[in-house]
Amino acid sequence: MATLFTKIINREIPAEIIAEDDNYIAFLDIMPLVKGHVLVVPKKETDYIFALEDDLLAGLFVFSKKIAKAIDKSIKCTRVGVAVIGLEVPHVHVHLVPLRTMDDINFTRPKMKLSKEELAEIATVIRGGLDS
Amino acid sequence: MATLFTKIINREIPAEIIAEDDNYIAFLDIMPLVKGHVLVVPKKETDYIFALEDDLLAGLFVFSKKIAKAIDKSIKCTRVGVAVIGLEVPHVHVHLVPLRTMDDINFTRPKMKLSKEELAEIATVIRGGLDS
Repeated sequence: MATLFTKIINREIPAEIIAEDDNYIAFLDIMPLVKGHVLVVPKKETDYIFALEDDLLAGLFVFSKKIAKAIDKSIKCTRVGVAVIGLEVPHVHVHLVPLRTMDDINFTRPKMKLSKEELAEIATVIRGGLDS
Repeated sequence: MATLFTKIINREIPAEIIAEDDNYIAFLDIMPLVKGHVLVVPKKETDYIFALEDDLLAGLFVFSKKIAKAIDKSIKCTRVGVAVIGLEVPHVHVHLVPLRTMDDINFTRPKMKLSKEELAEIATVIRGGLDS
C-alpha cells in the first residue's frame, strides 16, 4: 500500500509543496513543531534512512540544503535543525525545523494546529526564499 | 580558537573514537541521551550544517551511514535516529541516536552520565559492528 507520502507525491492527498525534483519532494508538515517545519522525502519508498543507497542518501541532504536556505531566509529563526526519526510513517522523511531553542525540535511536545490558510501563507513565504 | 571537536580530532582531548577518515570522525557523545549515542563531525571546522559545501555535506551522511549500521548491529534499538541541532558547540555534528521511543531523541531531557569504563565498553561494542 502506498504510504501517506507517496500519496502526496502522486497528488492523491493535498499538501503545501515547497519544491520537488525527480528524486525528492519537500512539503509543509501539517502537524508542525513550529511554523515553517518542512518534510523532505525521497520519492522512492524506503522505510529507513540508512537503507537508502549512498547516492540517494547524499542527494537527500543536498536537496534539503536548498530548502533549509529558503527557510533561513524567510522564517524567523536562529538556524534550521534536522531530525530523522522514523518511528511513525514508514517512508524516509527529513524534518527541517526552524530553531530558536532546543525545545523547538522536541518531538514529544504537542504539535501545532494550523489552518489551511495559515499553512498556505507559510508555504508561499518559504517558496519566495528559494533561489530561482 | 579550536572548537572542542577540533581538539578531539587533534587528540588534545580524549574521546572514544569509533572511526575516522580524511574528512570525518565519529566518537561517543560523553553526555549521551542513550547508550550508543555517537557524534559524527566533519574535520573542517564549520559552524552550520547547511554552510557545508555540497560534497562535504553529502559525504557526511554517507560516512554516518557506516557508523549507523555498526550501531544497529551492536546496540539494542529499533533504528538509529538522526539530529543536527547546532545551538551549542559551533562545529557541525550529526547526532546518531539508537532509538526505541521518540523520547530517546528529546534533547531537553537530562543526559546520561556514564563512567569512562562504560563509555569504553560501548565504543568497543560499536567498533565491533563496523564492516571491515
